[in-house]
Amino acid sequence: MEYQFKVNWGDTDAAGIVFYPNFYKWMDQATHHYFSKLGFSTWKLFHEDYTGIPIVEAKCRFQSPLFFEDEVCVKSAIVELRDKVFKIQHQFFKGEQMIAEGYEIRVWANFKNGKPKAVPIPDEIREKMKKALSDNIQVLG
Amino acid sequence: MEYQFKVNWGDTDAAGIVFYPNFYKWMDQATHHYFSKLGFSTWKLFHEDYTGIPIVEAKCRFQSPLFFEDEVCVKSAIVELRDKVFKIQHQFFKGEQMIAEGYEIRVWANFKNGKPKAVPIPDEIREKMKKALSDNIQVLG
Amino acid sequence: MEYQFKVNWGDTDAAGIVFYPNFYKWMDQATHHYFSKLGFSTWKLFHEDYTGIPIVEAKCRFQSPLFFEDEVCVKSAIVELRDKVFKIQHQFFKGEQMIAEGYEIRVWANFKNGKPKAVPIPDEIREKMKKALSDNIQVLG
Amino acid sequence: MEYQFKVNWGDTDAAGIVFYPNFYKWMDQATHHYFSKLGFSTWKLFHEDYTGIPIVEAKCRFQSPLFFEDEVCVKSAIVELRDKVFKIQHQFFKGEQMIAEGYEIRVWANFKNGKPKAVPIPDEIREKMKKALSDNIQVLG
Repeated sequence: MEYQFKVNWGDTDAAGIVFYPNFYKWMDQATHHYFSKLGFSTWKLFHEDYTGIPIVEAKCRFQSPLFFEDEVCVKSAIVELRDKVFKIQHQFFKGEQMIAEGYEIRVWANFKNGKPKAVPIPDEIREKMKKALSDNIQVLG
Repeated sequence: MEYQFKVNWGDTDAAGIVFYPNFYKWMDQATHHYFSKLGFSTWKLFHEDYTGIPIVEAKCRFQSPLFFEDEVCVKSAIVELRDKVFKIQHQFFKGEQMIAEGYEIRVWANFKNGKPKAVPIPDEIREKMKKALSDNIQVLG
Repeated sequence: MEYQFKVNWGDTDAAGIVFYPNFYKWMDQATHHYFSKLGFSTWKLFHEDYTGIPIVEAKCRFQSPLFFEDEVCVKSAIVELRDKVFKIQHQFFKGEQMIAEGYEIRVWANFKNGKPKAVPIPDEIREKMKKALSDNIQVLG
Repeated sequence: MEYQFKVNWGDTDAAGIVFYPNFYKWMDQATHHYFSKLGFSTWKLFHEDYTGIPIVEAKCRFQSPLFFEDEVCVKSAIVELRDKVFKIQHQFFKGEQMIAEGYEIRVWANFKNGKPKAVPIPDEIREKMKKALSDNIQVLG
């Protein structure tokens, strides 16, 4: 699954050093985009079903600079899929060059009573994620 | 070394779910604060000596919610100190409760020619970091 | 009413040019701080009474640079107080020097049915704002 | 001149209330986009000619909510053009509906000696802005 964005003024400086929390903002956007593309808007899930995907852990490694107006493509893939938890990998590319690589671990959660409670990922969604996972295993290797 | 901040409106929501890139923003602030407290302003280092501390890797695990106006204390400690690279750990506390825990790996770098070039951490600064490291091993271990 | 903050790494650059949307973030923080100091947490108002203070208009004039670690004091004052609407002025000072000056116009609103609906500012809160207003007219005028 | 963007998760909440400093971030992006479209990258101007466009004043009025994944079009137009100063208007549309309307006043400035110094807008750039201005007077008036 691919998410495209353009680097804005203020995201980076003269040496191409990105204010690094931006990478996590972009991973967050890529994850929401991933579920939209799969056919499940996280916005609808949250506002119609009280379902959210709170984060447990996130890591990123930064390899190359980015400059104003650079076009970036984030390739996202589910790399681990458990009952209530999933791990999504994000690789940032500028053309052929990898800029950064990270992942997020998130929980499927119900917010009906205010406090999030982990619940199984619904079968319908799980099936689509599985397909993406198996597609991706081939790509990753 | 401790860095204190207050959670702002807009950093978090009704369920106490923080927009998670904020944790990396706070880790970044805690690192700059760490060097200030050590006696070396990263601002001066950058603008007087062309020295910066670009990031290589950052990871964070998120355990508990935070709410508007919560007072947070970040405890920061050097946990690895190499010739040109260091790893700084950040633990977020709300009172006694740990909220999140992460680290950053950063490089000591010279930006004189635009592109960052890794250089050895100056002895004067290394000594102070070492002291903090040994102080911290006792605390952590 | 005064709100104090310190300029963070990433808020500003070498020439002291602040990424200007930050000033609005600080005005927003100053307004929430204003009501907290008055004894009415906007967080409680929102989560217990479905009451929010959505913005209608905001303006700011920028006069002087700010640098990393500058201590800033925002002086906030109600300068117009209508039935359902108020205007709050924010003046940014670094020591004696004014850095920026702006205002926000906000509506008292009920969010019970999802969509915000303007409602009169409760008398108890209005009285405290009025007092702040009359206090401030002397200061401003 | 038009600048398109999509509302991200985290920019807005369940009631469509945008964290309002985001509108200024989008106006800033629209202004940089405006000059890019005119053929003058503000990035190149800054890094090759030490020329920047620091802000003097910005105002915005907020009329309607925005929701996650809304497609927004910002229509930007120079509405005042002086020797060293210009005013650029930004109107935010979601389809036919106006969401917000604001402006920025900016100075043409040289940063060669660190401190910004106002300088006349170069003729080549002024001509293109004038054309946009006259095009726009017809639209606005």
